[in-house]
This record gives sequence, structure tokens and C-alpha cells, in this order.
Amino acid sequence: MDWNRRNIMLSGGALAAGAIGLPAGAAGALPAAAAGRKLGYAVVGLGGYGLGIIVPQFANCRNSKLVALVSGDAAKARKVAADYGVPERNLYDYRNFDSIRDNPEIDIVYICLPVSMHAEYTIRAARAGKHVLCEKPMALSSAECASMIAACRQAGRKLMIGYRCHFEPTNLEAVRRARAGEIGKLRYFRSEHGFTFNNPNAWRLKKAMSGGGSLMDIGIYALNAARTMTGEEPVAVYAQETTDRSDPRFREVEDLIGFQLEFPSGVVGSCMSMYSANQNHILLVGDKGRIEMEPATAYRGNRLWVGSGRGEEVVPAPGPGATQWAGQLDHLAQCILQDKEPIVAGEEGLRDMRIIEAIYRSAREQKRIALQA
Amino acid sequence: MDWNRRNIMLSGGALAAGAIGLPAGAAGALPAAAAGRKLGYAVVGLGGYGLGIIVPQFANCRNSKLVALVSGDAAKARKVAADYGVPERNLYDYRNFDSIRDNPEIDIVYICLPVSMHAEYTIRAARAGKHVLCEKPMALSSAECASMIAACRQAGRKLMIGYRCHFEPTNLEAVRRARAGEIGKLRYFRSEHGFTFNNPNAWRLKKAMSGGGSLMDIGIYALNAARTMTGEEPVAVYAQETTDRSDPRFREVEDLIGFQLEFPSGVVGSCMSMYSANQNHILLVGDKGRIEMEPATAYRGNRLWVGSGRGEEVVPAPGPGATQWAGQLDHLAQCILQDKEPIVAGEEGLRDMRIIEAIYRSAREQKRIALQA
Repeated sequence: MDWNRRNIMLSGGALAAGAIGLPAGAAGALPAAAAGRKLGYAVVGLGGYGLGIIVPQFANCRNSKLVALVSGDAAKARKVAADYGVPERNLYDYRNFDSIRDNPEIDIVYICLPVSMHAEYTIRAARAGKHVLCEKPMALSSAECASMIAACRQAGRKLMIGYRCHFEPTNLEAVRRARAGEIGKLRYFRSEHGFTFNNPNAWRLKKAMSGGGSLMDIGIYALNAARTMTGEEPVAVYAQETTDRSDPRFREVEDLIGFQLEFPSGVVGSCMSMYSANQNHILLVGDKGRIEMEPATAYRGNRLWVGSGRGEEVVPAPGPGATQWAGQLDHLAQCILQDKEPIVAGEEGLRDMRIIEAIYRSAREQKRIALQA
Repeated sequence: MDWNRRNIMLSGGALAAGAIGLPAGAAGALPAAAAGRKLGYAVVGLGGYGLGIIVPQFANCRNSKLVALVSGDAAKARKVAADYGVPERNLYDYRNFDSIRDNPEIDIVYICLPVSMHAEYTIRAARAGKHVLCEKPMALSSAECASMIAACRQAGRKLMIGYRCHFEPTNLEAVRRARAGEIGKLRYFRSEHGFTFNNPNAWRLKKAMSGGGSLMDIGIYALNAARTMTGEEPVAVYAQETTDRSDPRFREVEDLIGFQLEFPSGVVGSCMSMYSANQNHILLVGDKGRIEMEPATAYRGNRLWVGSGRGEEVVPAPGPGATQWAGQLDHLAQCILQDKEPIVAGEEGLRDMRIIEAIYRSAREQKRIALQA
């Protein structure tokens, strides 16, 4: 299918140069010689996401396998290695990390570290000759993002950002139906993403480690979905922040931030991000109907309605992987095997980060911020 | 119940001086001598709303009766008069309108005319010694609103604006539950109001008659609900308009306008108004749950959910009247009988109009507009 053409139909305007693609297909699309190959991943960081979510996902993969672990906690790493069949020789810590260059079993490094460490470890991995999958948000700043992209380009290695929803069936189905014109001409996009942050000691609440609060962590889903689902790049933002600084959770980072995105076609994007309420919702309203998801970007249980309301629930077609994470892990492996650019390359993370910086600036200066084309 | 106190609990801030009340109760609260009295209404304008919606509602009223009609179409007026038992002597047109002063059967004039005629007929009615119920939006401008308020004050007559949702059970139940703290501390309010405007010749699309497009007509529900349900007055607005001026419907007035409201407590209000898509939705998100309505402000069939999602639908307590319109009509009659101010007096319409003017200005100037306290 020609997504670009359909996108133009939907948005009624020129497709932005950086508009987001959809995964080209599962391993079946690979050349026969590559179809059975599995590239080796080193997972860096055995926190809640790296250990709790990513490590178990290799069992669902076709072109990816877990071959190495990087952790500051040797005992934990040994335990995880034993559980998942990672040889002890492939355990690294943050001091000997650069020696992964000498390990041909490792093709890709998956960085599941606090945001403040993304740039450093992406650049060190690229210099060690490895491809990189880096969690979102990509880095603390767009300057860091640019340096990560440059380092990977210089090393001739691929860089992908962990935007898992680009591999999630409900989200893909929603994009397909929007592009197919099922709701007519898109009028506006709305998304609210937030949850109640309960642990006041988490690194995500330390600005030096996270770079920011709810927007960097959860609001980024609304922002990325706005760009993905409209197929357009915003030309301006306006934002309004509300943070109770006397709340021990929010001494350093923002709680709630509402932002409006201006798209070239005239579509309005209205988003809400917060660490003080639970909401996970995406809505596209067109002149012939609406596409609604709730929850929209959860780990599981996402639901989709297409039509005039919640009358008609849609069961999405299967995604590219057995799970959204398997699809994501295999996508980068397949891109490497075929020498293609990932659909969510470093440039995608950079684009979000530039807009996030503009959102923060808009909230601070209380004015509309135009975005550079 | 002490709504003001509860409101302070909810909003965590000082209650704005002009915060909106709820109807005090039905006719049961009237002194015995007044309980059985019915005040006489003259309905001015026999268009879709005046004739189609209002005229039949007197059958549901306790303290209101239809006694007169004002129309430029004598044949139509005679037909309606016959259908609803209005004596022929009580039929007026726009030339002899002022002679209603000599008709003691008429206590109240209900103005169901195009917006451009609201100020003139409100002022003429007041000068004729009649109380006034005027449809929303109150007038073309805040200056007109102020002159209407002044005219009624000078004549010692009451002025109420037709904000029917203040008498609609689902909306009242939502406000009660928000005030009662059922969703904890309010974080944000969101509302989308729009419909597909099909008739390109309607007066609502002529700026001289309507004063504006979707915002004046349907977006005003989102704005008024934002103020009512938060119990706060916004201190600033930001808005973004999208109108396809090549669409024959939108040569003179706006189609879509998205606006963000800043409330003193930090609550964010995010609203969308349009004439090119169907949406009727209100959402209040607090740190302990949410209140959702869809449809929220329809003539009938409004639905309400309170809790963590759409799991728990709430059946509202009965409203003050048999229907929202009966509650509205009787409220003004009861206020007159008891010499009380209507909960949606002229000042309420003026407040919305000042904000609407700021929204239009914000969209035009692409900047945040601070509102005068």
C-alpha cells in the first residue's frame, strides 16, 4: 500500500518530509538467506523496563536474540544471565563497556538507562562498532540527539529509538484507517497521556537524570502519536504547565502540561501530559467520523473504535511481531540485515525532542513558539 | 448544600466572585402563595428553536405559561397560536412589539431571535416593563451585553440567559459529584462541542447576524461548562482557528477553533469547537478519577460516567424541571416571584462573551490573551 498517497488524502496538504512510516512487514519480507538469522542484542540497564519488559521479549523474536547484558550490579546480571541463557563471558559493567567492540556476538546495543545516560552510551556503542536501539525520550536535549545521530552515522551504524507504538497493532490499525479516509478529512487530533507517579525517589523525578517530567516520559506518546497519526510535522506549539512545587514528587520536574500543536494542513493537535492522573487516550476527529483508542498506548489491552462513537469496536490486524516489543526488536535487526533505515530512526527522536524543547519554552514564556521547518 | 464550600475544596483556590450557582430547587421551594402561580411568557421568534423547542415546553412547566407570540410571519403566528391556545389579541410583530407594555398578561419575554437582534429586543422588552429570557450567545459583543444588563437594571426587570444545561440533570449531577470531591483534586477539564453544519444559507453563517461561527453557537457550551464545572473564572486564553474559507459555509464565520483556558488554581481547560464534525463531550480529570459525559449537552440522551473510566455509568437525580427547558423557564418565573437573581443572569452571558472576544483575539494575534479580573 502507498501510505504516502493516502496520507496526502487525509491531511489535505503536502506530506512533511519527516513523516513517519509504518513497519514494512515481518521477517517474511526478508531475503531467504537472512530470514533465519538472529542478530545479537546486548541489553544495557537492568531496571524495570530493561529487565522487566525487554529481556523476556527475545523469546518472541524471529531475528533477534539476547546475547549480552550490561549492568552495574554484577550479582543481578549473573542471575539474569542464568535465567535467560546469556553466557557469563558476555556480562559487562559500565567500566568495561567499551570492550564490547571485541565481542562479535553483539550486533546491537539496547539502551534502557536513565535519559541522562542515553547520549553517552549510544555514542560509546557506536564507537565500539555496534548498532543502537535507544529508549525514548532519546536524550536530555536536541543537541545530545544530534550528537548521537552524528556518532552513529560516522561509525556507519544504525540508530533506532524505542517508540514501541509503531509496532503495536491497535495503533497501526488506527493509522491505516485514518490514511484510508475512513473518517474523512481530519479536523483535529487529541491525546491525553498520564499516570499517577507514586515513588518520589524515582530517577524520573530528578531533572539531571530525566531531563524533565511527565512530558519527557509519558506525554511524548501523545506528541509522537500526533505526528504519526496526522502524518504531519507541527509548525508551532503553545503550552501551559501546572505543577504543584510543594508536592515532594514535583520539586524538580513538571507534573501537568497541556499543549496545542499547529499542523500545516490546519489540523489542530491538542495534548495533555501529567504525572498526577491516569489517562491514556487518543482521538482523531474527521468530518465523517472518529477514531478513538482507550487505552491507546498501554502495554496490553488497547482498544479501538472507528465510526460515529463507541458503537463499533475494531479488532486490529496482527502487528509485525508477536508483541509490540518483538516487532520493535526484530525491526532493527531486519533493517540491519537489509541495510534499510528504521522507521523510527534517531531523526525521529530528534524531531520529538525539538518539539518538546519548544513546548517547555512556550510554557515558560507563555507564548506560541514557531518551529523551524 | 453549600456548593461554594465544596467548590473551594475542589478547585483548591479562591472561588471566583462570579462563579456559577446551581438552581435552588423546584417550585416546592416557593412560598405557598406563589407555588401555584404561572407567569406569562411571550416567545419572540418562531424559528427552529423558538417554535420547535421552546413553545411546546410550557406544557411541562409549573410556574410558566405561554401567553403571547411575536413573529414577522402573521400566518405562522396565527397557526401556532391556535395550536397552543394563545389568544389572537396576544399576537405581535416587530413593528408593534413595544405595545406589549400595555399587556399585563405578559410577564416575561423569551428572545429566540438571531444574535444580532438580542440586544435590541432585550432592551425594548425591558423598557416595556417586561422581564427577559434571552437565548445564548447573549449578543454580538460584550458592549451589547453590558447595555442589555444596564437596560434591565434601569427598568428594574430580571435578565436571564438561556443556558439550558444549568437545568439539565446529567450536567447538574456531574457538577455535584465534582464538588463532592469524587474525583479528588481536579487536574484538567476538556470539552469538545461541534456538529456538521449543512445549510450554507443559515443566518448562523452570516457574521452580521450571528457575530461568529461555531464558537458563538456550539463552542460556547464547552466554554460555559468549563467555568461551571471548575467553579473558576479563567485568567487567560490561547486559541487556534482553522477555517477553510473556500468552503461556502465558512466565507464569513469560523469553522474550528481550539482554545486553552488558564484557571487560577492551575486547572487547565482544553476546548474544541467546530461546525465540520460531530462531537459532544465533556471530561473532568482529577487525581482520583474522572467524570465523563457523552453526549454531554444534547437535548436528550446525555450519559455520565464517574470513576476510573467508562465502567460505571451514573443515572442522575431528577433535575429541577420535567425537562431542562421547563426547569429553565420556571427558574426565571420563580426568581421573579421570589425576587431572586437567576443563576444564569445577564452577567453570566457577559462573562462568556468577554472570553469569546479574547478567544477570537488570541486566534487572530496568535498569542495568549490575559483576561481582566
